[in-house]
Amino acid sequence: MPRDAPARGFPSREFASRTAKAQALMAKQGWAGLLLMSEPDVRYFSGFQTLFWQSPTRPWFLFLPLSGKPIAIIPEIGASLMRQTWLEDIRTWSAPAPHDDGISLLSQLLGPLAKDKARIGVMKGHETHLRMPLGDWERLIGALPDLQIADATGLVQGLRMVKSSAEIDKLRHICAIGSATFASVPEIVAEGMPLDEVFRTFRREALANGADDAPYLVGAAGQGGYTDVISPPSQRPLQRGDVMMLDTGCTWDGYFCDFDRNWAIGQADDRAKRVYDTLWRATEAGLAAAKPGNTTRNLFDAMSAVIAEIDTSGGDIGRLGHGLGMQLTEQPSHAAFDTTVLQENMVLTLEPSLSYGNGLMMVHEEDIVVGKTGAELLTERAAPELPVI
Amino acid sequence: MPRDAPARGFPSREFASRTAKAQALMAKQGWAGLLLMSEPDVRYFSGFQTLFWQSPTRPWFLFLPLSGKPIAIIPEIGASLMRQTWLEDIRTWSAPAPHDDGISLLSQLLGPLAKDKARIGVMKGHETHLRMPLGDWERLIGALPDLQIADATGLVQGLRMVKSSAEIDKLRHICAIGSATFASVPEIVAEGMPLDEVFRTFRREALANGADDAPYLVGAAGQGGYTDVISPPSQRPLQRGDVMMLDTGCTWDGYFCDFDRNWAIGQADDRAKRVYDTLWRATEAGLAAAKPGNTTRNLFDAMSAVIAEIDTSGGDIGRLGHGLGMQLTEQPSHAAFDTTVLQENMVLTLEPSLSYGNGLMMVHEEDIVVGKTGAELLTERAAPELPVI
Repeated sequence: MPRDAPARGFPSREFASRTAKAQALMAKQGWAGLLLMSEPDVRYFSGFQTLFWQSPTRPWFLFLPLSGKPIAIIPEIGASLMRQTWLEDIRTWSAPAPHDDGISLLSQLLGPLAKDKARIGVMKGHETHLRMPLGDWERLIGALPDLQIADATGLVQGLRMVKSSAEIDKLRHICAIGSATFASVPEIVAEGMPLDEVFRTFRREALANGADDAPYLVGAAGQGGYTDVISPPSQRPLQRGDVMMLDTGCTWDGYFCDFDRNWAIGQADDRAKRVYDTLWRATEAGLAAAKPGNTTRNLFDAMSAVIAEIDTSGGDIGRLGHGLGMQLTEQPSHAAFDTTVLQENMVLTLEPSLSYGNGLMMVHEEDIVVGKTGAELLTERAAPELPVI
Repeated sequence: MPRDAPARGFPSREFASRTAKAQALMAKQGWAGLLLMSEPDVRYFSGFQTLFWQSPTRPWFLFLPLSGKPIAIIPEIGASLMRQTWLEDIRTWSAPAPHDDGISLLSQLLGPLAKDKARIGVMKGHETHLRMPLGDWERLIGALPDLQIADATGLVQGLRMVKSSAEIDKLRHICAIGSATFASVPEIVAEGMPLDEVFRTFRREALANGADDAPYLVGAAGQGGYTDVISPPSQRPLQRGDVMMLDTGCTWDGYFCDFDRNWAIGQADDRAKRVYDTLWRATEAGLAAAKPGNTTRNLFDAMSAVIAEIDTSGGDIGRLGHGLGMQLTEQPSHAAFDTTVLQENMVLTLEPSLSYGNGLMMVHEEDIVVGKTGAELLTERAAPELPVI
């Protein structure tokens, strides 16, 4: 079990710093505020952390004014927890209230801004969702026709992409827990074990190693390889000649690891070994390219060049890795369409994948932090040859 | 460990029946189709089940035409899994593609309907979110100005509220797993154990008892009672005189239990005992009222009448229970604003709560299925007196 867990939570100055950075960017854009409503966005600026978001019933809102602390507009059931954060202005209603789930409170807050024909930022772009009823959104905006809405996706995701040292400590810790759990797989998994039992055993081991939870676990196993990388487990027992892949997002204090490992059961055939080796070297190429100044497209190109030894399709998975932090996947994407410039303290996954044979595929994944001069692995590097259990 | 797990998945006729019911209701409304995009809604009509939804990157769409099978418009990474469902028409694109994440494919599908000035249903109401970028939604609708959009919330939630016997079997199974896990708490938890360790131990026990996962676990412990019911765990060790509450949503084959239990550590004070007894009797009143023909407001009133012995605030939690199924919380709500008529095979939680003393609160929760003549418990009924560990 990894030792020396970092402190939970963040000091208030961390939230003050995030807020000040957002406000400086808002001022540059000429925006009067930022209206946020997704779990990670609300948590990023407030520190409000609860699994209660799993209930779709209640919307939660955070408003960042141009100066001062964020304002929470939330269901009363969350007031006690929100009062433990650095926020001071917490406005609540008794939710659920289908006919007015925070809309009056939002209208009161935004009304003066609308009167001034001000502009506010809202998350409208790639990788975002509207975490409130669309009908309520239409009602709110309809009642404030003079309020201008700008897309805040780039601003917020741009901030969240570059991690603080406290965030990196949490990510390093959960990656170490994930690595310890993968390292124990040869001891806890064996030929004959049904795949759903492998999943259950893996989750219990991750918890024993100190994970708060292992909410994301997908994987597959099949003779000579697998055909799918997002499935829940079958009940099929592992067989000699299978290639098994497990891909997990474990969490610690609200931060994710996201990486996978492959194993052969009993024996590995030459094709699987060759594909594994190619992906391992593709990751090496990604590691070499992951330095400040390069772009995510450079990362994509570096890994693609190695993958092309076997597979020139370009990959229907659409990208070869992504940002990592409070969500299993975050911006940016290592893809031909993404030209984000890598900066120190970005935390990323490198996730080369390829298709081979008749519909088989293999994926590799590591988690890294971009350092001053190059990549630092947060995960214990996968073995250079396909391990056999 | 509960035995006799039901079969995983559903036969195709279950999805055909759900689809036919929706189509009959759509025809009555004069709608030409239904566009769905949330995990449970897509899964309900297709059987498509994956944890990959935890990544916010890619949108997923399902279109129910007025007749025939649903049409999937999804990222290529999900095609292999979607082909295992009963669907036939699966249209994919290589996602992520920020400049066109399924919007062209949706436009092609909906274009002919827009030309006919047809009306389609979209989830816009209470307890729904728009699980695609708001900007993409605006772009799609802007390009199809003649397409009429109706709110499908009542139609879809109305169907999902009443469970099939196969769904009830799954819910009964996960509730039994939850009950077995709560039953073991006195053996695995003791004075001095930090609350976060209690959580970790509970999750491992739920997995050992057969849960696929325990994604939702909240709770609290404090001297004479607790002040918050949605927090992550503190690291404070349990102390003699604490009242501890754990509230869990465990999952099996995509279905949730959602209930809680309370314990006193070492000793229980009279006030906590009295509050516990009141909530236990409030649940009894709920059980007696949970029969076909009564409304959810009747359930709320029945439980509120007992709660009022101690607390007449009406409850800032906003409701005293809710629907249960593929999500931790579903429609309807046991609240003064909700007059849903109870029907046979609705699965519900009864969740009376009250505030007492100086900011303390207590919650109780059971899961039931509404039978022909009354409630059947899916959970093993909580002890009538506050158990002492």
